Amino acid sequence: MTDVSILSGSASDASIVQRVAEVLNEHGVTWETRVISAHRDPAALDDYIQRSDCKVFIAVAGLSAALPGVVASRTKRPVIGVPVSGKLMGGLDALLSIVQMPKGVPVACVGVDNGENAALLAIRILSLDKE
Amino acid sequence: MTDVSILSGSASDASIVQRVAEVLNEHGVTWETRVISAHRDPAALDDYIQRSDCKVFIAVAGLSAALPGVVASRTKRPVIGVPVSGKLMGGLDALLSIVQMPKGVPVACVGVDNGENAALLAIRILSLDKE
Amino acid sequence: MTDVSILSGSASDASIVQRVAEVLNEHGVTWETRVISAHRDPAALDDYIQRSDCKVFIAVAGLSAALPGVVASRTKRPVIGVPVSGKLMGGLDALLSIVQMPKGVPVACVGVDNGENAALLAIRILSLDKE
Amino acid sequence: MTDVSILSGSASDASIVQRVAEVLNEHGVTWETRVISAHRDPAALDDYIQRSDCKVFIAVAGLSAALPGVVASRTKRPVIGVPVSGKLMGGLDALLSIVQMPKGVPVACVGVDNGENAALLAIRILSLDKE
Amino acid sequence: MTDVSILSGSASDASIVQRVAEVLNEHGVTWETRVISAHRDPAALDDYIQRSDCKVFIAVAGLSAALPGVVASRTKRPVIGVPVSGKLMGGLDALLSIVQMPKGVPVACVGVDNGENAALLAIRILSLDKE
Amino acid sequence: MTDVSILSGSASDASIVQRVAEVLNEHGVTWETRVISAHRDPAALDDYIQRSDCKVFIAVAGLSAALPGVVASRTKRPVIGVPVSGKLMGGLDALLSIVQMPKGVPVACVGVDNGENAALLAIRILSLDKE
Amino acid sequence: MTDVSILSGSASDASIVQRVAEVLNEHGVTWETRVISAHRDPAALDDYIQRSDCKVFIAVAGLSAALPGVVASRTKRPVIGVPVSGKLMGGLDALLSIVQMPKGVPVACVGVDNGENAALLAIRILSLDKE
Amino acid sequence: MTDVSILSGSASDASIVQRVAEVLNEHGVTWETRVISAHRDPAALDDYIQRSDCKVFIAVAGLSAALPGVVASRTKRPVIGVPVSGKLMGGLDALLSIVQMPKGVPVACVGVDNGENAALLAIRILSLDKE
Repeated sequence: MTDVSILSGSASDASIVQRVAEVLNEHGVTWETRVISAHRDPAALDDYIQRSDCKVFIAVAGLSAALPGVVASRTKRPVIGVPVSGKLMGGLDALLSIVQMPKGVPVACVGVDNGENAALLAIRILSLDKE
Repeated sequence: MTDVSILSGSASDASIVQRVAEVLNEHGVTWETRVISAHRDPAALDDYIQRSDCKVFIAVAGLSAALPGVVASRTKRPVIGVPVSGKLMGGLDALLSIVQMPKGVPVACVGVDNGENAALLAIRILSLDKE
Repeated sequence: MTDVSILSGSASDASIVQRVAEVLNEHGVTWETRVISAHRDPAALDDYIQRSDCKVFIAVAGLSAALPGVVASRTKRPVIGVPVSGKLMGGLDALLSIVQMPKGVPVACVGVDNGENAALLAIRILSLDKE
Repeated sequence: MTDVSILSGSASDASIVQRVAEVLNEHGVTWETRVISAHRDPAALDDYIQRSDCKVFIAVAGLSAALPGVVASRTKRPVIGVPVSGKLMGGLDALLSIVQMPKGVPVACVGVDNGENAALLAIRILSLDKE
Repeated sequence: MTDVSILSGSASDASIVQRVAEVLNEHGVTWETRVISAHRDPAALDDYIQRSDCKVFIAVAGLSAALPGVVASRTKRPVIGVPVSGKLMGGLDALLSIVQMPKGVPVACVGVDNGENAALLAIRILSLDKE
Repeated sequence: MTDVSILSGSASDASIVQRVAEVLNEHGVTWETRVISAHRDPAALDDYIQRSDCKVFIAVAGLSAALPGVVASRTKRPVIGVPVSGKLMGGLDALLSIVQMPKGVPVACVGVDNGENAALLAIRILSLDKE
Repeated sequence: MTDVSILSGSASDASIVQRVAEVLNEHGVTWETRVISAHRDPAALDDYIQRSDCKVFIAVAGLSAALPGVVASRTKRPVIGVPVSGKLMGGLDALLSIVQMPKGVPVACVGVDNGENAALLAIRILSLDKE
Repeated sequence: MTDVSILSGSASDASIVQRVAEVLNEHGVTWETRVISAHRDPAALDDYIQRSDCKVFIAVAGLSAALPGVVASRTKRPVIGVPVSGKLMGGLDALLSIVQMPKGVPVACVGVDNGENAALLAIRILSLDKE
C-alpha cells in the first residue's frame, strides 16, 4: 500500500514531482508516481484513480491545470494541487485553474512550483491517523 | 439531429446559454442544451458526449472552467469555450482556464460572457460544409 | 472534542464562516469558531491554537491574509485557507497571500470566498481516519 | 487549393508558424503562409483574404494583436488566433487583444504561443466535412 | 473643415464621446463624430478616414479595442485612443489593446474612460500650429 | 531650435532614448536629450522645460514613472510617454503610472519600451504644421 | 505647529482624508489638510511643502498617483502614500504608482483606501521622539 | 544601541539586506540584521522583537511575505517592508502581501527589491528626532 500518489500532467514537471518525493522520503511516507494528462488520457486517469489505494493525491500541473480538479471529481480522498510556473504571468494561469474550483469539488492548492509544501501538507493530513 | 450542443457547468450560466441559443436560432441552426458539471458529474458528461450527434460543442463555464477542456478531451469535434465573468479580476480565472489548454487538446476560446460570438463562430464552422 | 476550528480575521467574514459551518453540519462534523486577527491579537491566537483539540483548522481572511499562514506555523495539523474577496482585483491580494507560502509551512488554499469547498476539503481529510 | 492559410504579423513569429505547419503536415492538411501586418499593410491583407481559397485562417500575432480580429472582420470563414508571448505579463496583452473581440466578429483564440493547438483546432474544423 | 474627428466603436461609448466633445467645445475646437466599428464595418471606416479633413483623430473603444490602431494604420495624422472600461479587470483589455501597438503604427493612448484628456491632448497638438 | 526634446528618468534608459533618436534622424527631425529625474531633480527639470524651445516632449521612464506626467503639468506642449519594462509584471507599473493620468493633464502613452512609436507619433504631430 | 499634513490630489478623496484625520484626532495628533494636485498645481504644492512645519506628510491619490512621490522629492521628511481605489483593477494603478518609486526617493505606501493605517503609521513615527 | 533592525525571511534575500546596510552605513546609521522566518520560527521572532532596542524595523520578504506584518503586530515602532521579486508576476505576491495590511497594523511598503529606499525611508524617520 502507498500513502501518497503523485500525478503530473506532463513529463516536463519531473523536477517538481521529484521534490515532492524527496520530502515524502525524508518523512518515511510511501508514494508512487504517474504521468497522466487529464486532458489527453482521461480514461487511463479514471482507471488509475479507481485502482489506487493511496490516501492522498498530489497533482502537479501547468497552464489550464485541470488535473487536480479532475482527480478531485473522481475520488473522495483529499487532493493537493501544485501549479507549475510558465510564461504567462509566471504561472497565474495554473494557479487560478487549480484554486478557483467550483463549489462541491475541493482542491487544496499550494504555491507555484512548491512541491515541498504539497508533500508537507500531505504529511500533516496523514499524521491525523496517528494522533 | 442537432448542429450544436450547448453545455454549461452551472444553472447560473443560463443567460449566456440563452444568448447563444438566440443567435443560433436567428441563423436557422439547430441546438440542444444541457447543464452538466465537468467536475461534479463526469460520468454523465462522458455519456452525453459519446451519444451526442452534434457537430460543434459550445461549453460555458466560470471559475477554474474545466468544462470546455474536458469536452475537448473526449471528442474529436470542435469545442468552443465561453468564460463566465466572476468576482476575481472580472473573469480572468475562467478565461485563463479555458484558453491555456495543453498541447494536444485544442479549445476555441471566445471573450468573457460573449455567448453571441460563440454562436457566430459555430455558424462559421458549420458553414464550411455548404461552401 | 471538536473536529474543525473555523478562524476568521474579522467579524466582516461572518457569512463565509457561516457557510463553512452549514456544510460541516450537513455532514455531522463538529466545529467551533473564533474571530481572532493574526495581526492584531497574536497572543490570543497562539493561546487558542495551543489549547484547541481540533483536527483541522479553517482560516478565513482577506487583504494580506496572514491568518492561515500564521496558524500553520504554530500547529502541525492541516490548515485550510479561504481568501476573502475585496476591492483590489477581486481578492487576488488575499489569494496570493494565502497560497504563496514559503517552503516549510504548508497551507491548503481553496477558491476566493469558497467556504463550502473549505468545509468539504476538511471532511475529506477527516474521513481518512474512518477508512 | 489550400485548406489553411497561416498569417503572421511579423517575421519574428516564424517559429510558431512553423509549428503550426508541422502539425498540419503530419495530418495531411495543405497550407500556405504569409507575413502581413494588419496595422502596417492593411490593403495587402484585404487583398490576400479576398483571393484566398482556404477554408480556415490561423492568425499569429503579439502585442495589441489585431491581425486575427481584422481577418475575421473581412471573411466569413473561421479564424483561429494565436497570441504570441512578450515582455508585458508574458503575453497577456496579445491574449486579451485576440480573445476579447466585440460581439459580431468571432475569433477562436488558443493559448499563448500554442501553434500546435491552433493546427489541431483547424483539423477538427476541417474534419467536419468528411464525417 | 473640422479639427478633430471623434470615432467610437459602439453606440454604448456615447457618454465618453460626449465628454470629448464638451471639452473641445470649451476650447473652440471644431469636431465631428461617427460610430464605426473597425471590426464590423471596415470598408465604411476606410472610406471615412480617406475623406475626412480633420487634423487629429480620437478613437474610443472597449474590449480588444482595435479601432485606434486601425485608424492609425490608414492615416498619417495623429491618432489618440481612449480605452473604455469593462468587466475584465476594469478595462485592462482595452488599455493593452490600444497601447501595445507594434512598431511602425503609433497610437497616443490616454487613461481608461478619460475622454477629457483625449480632448486636451488633441488641443495641445492643434495648438502647435499657432505658436 | 529643436523639434523634439527626449527626456529620460535614468541613464539606464539609454537604449530606448537612442532608438527614439534614430527614428527622428531618419525623418530629418531635430532633437536633444537630457537625463533628468522628475523625483530626484525637480528643479532642474522645471528649469529645462521652461527654457526648451522644442515642440514636442518625449519622456522615457520606468517603475512609478512620474516623468511624463510631471513634464505635462509644466508645459502646454504635447508630451509623449514611453514606459520602460521592469521586473514587476514586465512593466505594467510604468505603463499604468504613465497612462492613468488624472483629468486635466494629458499624456500620450505608447507601448512598453516602444521608443520607435514615440518618435513616429512625434513626427505625425510635427507634420500637421506642414499640411 | 502641526504634526501631520494630509494632502490629497482631488476633492473626491475626502472620505479617506477624513478617516486619516479621525484616527489622528483619537491619538491627539495635530494635523492640517490641503487638496493640491501634483499634476495640476505643482507650484502651489511646492510652496506649501516648503512653508509647512509638519513632521510627516500623508498624501492620498488615485490613478497614476504622483502626489506622494512628488512630495517626497521636495522634502526630507517622511512621506506616507495612500492609493485610492478606482475602476482599473480596483486601484492597482494607484498602488503601483505610489509604491514603485525609483531609488533615492522613498515613499511609505499603505494599502488601497487604507487611511486608518496611514494615520497609525504616522503616529508610530511621531512616537519615536518621545521614547 | 542600534538604530535599525534589518530582518529577512530567508538567507536568499541577502543581497537586498546588504543594500539596505550599505545605504545606512553611508548615512552613519547603526544597524543589525537577523534571518528569521515569521512562519518557520515565530517564537524566535517574537523574542528578538521584544529584546531589540532599535527604533525602526526593516523587514525583507518574498512570496506571501508575512514578516513585515507580523513584526508590526508585535511592536509599536515603525516597520518598513521590502517585497522581494519572484516568479509569479515579478513579485506581485510579496507586494500585495506586505502592502494590503488590515486596519490597525500599519506597514510602510516600498518598491519591489528596493532595499535602498527602505534605508532612506528609515533615515528620514530617524532624522525627525534631530530636527
